[in-house]
Amino acid sequence: MSLLLVAKKRDFSSLENALLEKDPNLDVEIWPRVDKKERVTFAVCWDHPEKVLGNYPNLRAVSSLGAGVNHLLDDKSLDDDVPICRLITGSLQEQMAEYVLNAILNYRHNFYDYVELKKKGSWEQKGIIPKDNTSVGIMGLGEMGKHVATLLEQQGYKVSGWSRSKKELKGMDSFAGKEELDPFLNATNILINLLPLTPETDGILDLELFKKLKKPGYLINVGRGDHLVEEDLIYAFDMGYLQGACLDVFEEEPLPKNHSFWNRKQIMITPHVAAITPAKEAAELLVENYKRAMSGMELLYEVDRERGY
Amino acid sequence: MSLLLVAKKRDFSSLENALLEKDPNLDVEIWPRVDKKERVTFAVCWDHPEKVLGNYPNLRAVSSLGAGVNHLLDDKSLDDDVPICRLITGSLQEQMAEYVLNAILNYRHNFYDYVELKKKGSWEQKGIIPKDNTSVGIMGLGEMGKHVATLLEQQGYKVSGWSRSKKELKGMDSFAGKEELDPFLNATNILINLLPLTPETDGILDLELFKKLKKPGYLINVGRGDHLVEEDLIYAFDMGYLQGACLDVFEEEPLPKNHSFWNRKQIMITPHVAAITPAKEAAELLVENYKRAMSGMELLYEVDRERGY
Repeated sequence: MSLLLVAKKRDFSSLENALLEKDPNLDVEIWPRVDKKERVTFAVCWDHPEKVLGNYPNLRAVSSLGAGVNHLLDDKSLDDDVPICRLITGSLQEQMAEYVLNAILNYRHNFYDYVELKKKGSWEQKGIIPKDNTSVGIMGLGEMGKHVATLLEQQGYKVSGWSRSKKELKGMDSFAGKEELDPFLNATNILINLLPLTPETDGILDLELFKKLKKPGYLINVGRGDHLVEEDLIYAFDMGYLQGACLDVFEEEPLPKNHSFWNRKQIMITPHVAAITPAKEAAELLVENYKRAMSGMELLYEVDRERGY
Repeated sequence: MSLLLVAKKRDFSSLENALLEKDPNLDVEIWPRVDKKERVTFAVCWDHPEKVLGNYPNLRAVSSLGAGVNHLLDDKSLDDDVPICRLITGSLQEQMAEYVLNAILNYRHNFYDYVELKKKGSWEQKGIIPKDNTSVGIMGLGEMGKHVATLLEQQGYKVSGWSRSKKELKGMDSFAGKEELDPFLNATNILINLLPLTPETDGILDLELFKKLKKPGYLINVGRGDHLVEEDLIYAFDMGYLQGACLDVFEEEPLPKNHSFWNRKQIMITPHVAAITPAKEAAELLVENYKRAMSGMELLYEVDRERGY
């Protein structure tokens, strides 16, 4: 029995070390050099090549190396009865919440403007967008979204949340389902996307949605690139629906060199780094789920394939 | 009796409105157009011209328009027996704490690098400086410093504080006096200066001090420009004592066009905006202190001239 690490481009050395430190008896293989395909019983995937999972007949479970699993759900080479699980750690949630708070502070305090003004050697005082006048709306209230909502509420923000089913959280206005999306948007200035990527949420961040936001509007996308209709973001700036955006995820990653987002002063770009799992924490959860899969137990953070997350 | 607003360059219209809204009977004068100098009993100053206060023989009190008062203490035209007070509001403390947290998050999450990489259209993932490995040290534990320490402690940072006399605060390691400055610095990566400017603290941020910081070192100066020996900051970068700095205050403000700081990539510059008093809050405290001064009561946030803050 072996645990296989699969990614198109990724240095797995620190994760491999952390896995062996956690369990020295573990047999870890790193794709594409796999000796005995039959021995692979657990695969850990990130940005894996299409159909590659079909090569391993004895898979008992597959884990994503992050919170997103759409790359696994979309993989037709993976048997429907192989359970899929996600990687959620306290550190991921904390990093995500910090990233979002940082993006909000940079927006409210005009830090991006000051970076530009510095280049020009220009001393120009900008106001602050007061916290009291700013409503934050979080789409997606899973493990990540709830954590972000809690931090922002503690920091004194007015927070609303929208998700498929109603989620109650202290200090948060809760909205659910399609029929409550408009009132949620109407009450939101700063929109944070943390939805899972499913057929229903693909392209949900479009011009029609941005139009319904309270002004001034601002977007923070830390979900998936495919949630956003990228050309609609530019229209939303031009129409005045949005003042700016902080994006960590994109339709195509790495974001192509010639993509128009690079030159848009309203957009802050980070290269999919909002939440990076530390190897040690990842190893702990992966070894736990490996053992559970081998002994037929229920996995931690197992995905409901129907729901898509 | 009248209340006088004095500054070299500042639009006082919103503050004047807020003062009159708070007390419609108030007689507000704006320097330099003052009809009867004898009537001025209370002056509110920010970056005021030298010796101007000597023109008002019946001053009963003078207030700074911010937390800093060194411009008033240094003014020889002001009689020694005229009480001086500062402007401290909850909003100022909150803004300051948010500014500092934002600067720390930008440093730990490499946001400044991502701004630069974006300009080049370059997708390059940087790590995060883990919170667990980072110690924050706050110099100055007055109204501002205490508030900053509390927020950072709540956010899970390891926080130390250094001040003239020992200040105990939940979750903070407390250091006091010259003899405990070195151990404080040795335990600090991210140094936040919130000291009052006095003869003892003038130029305290120098090469010798930076040398004693734990590495990697980072400076956030939100005290006064004169706390920092500006050329020593550059040496500290060159010697590897500091990785970067976020500066909101400078020896000369506005920072001169030809100042070398503008071109240093390690330095983030903001134009003295870390904490801006909202007019309404300023008006409330100023009217209160005006009334107290007129009836001979003790002022709120009165300065100890001997101590210098």
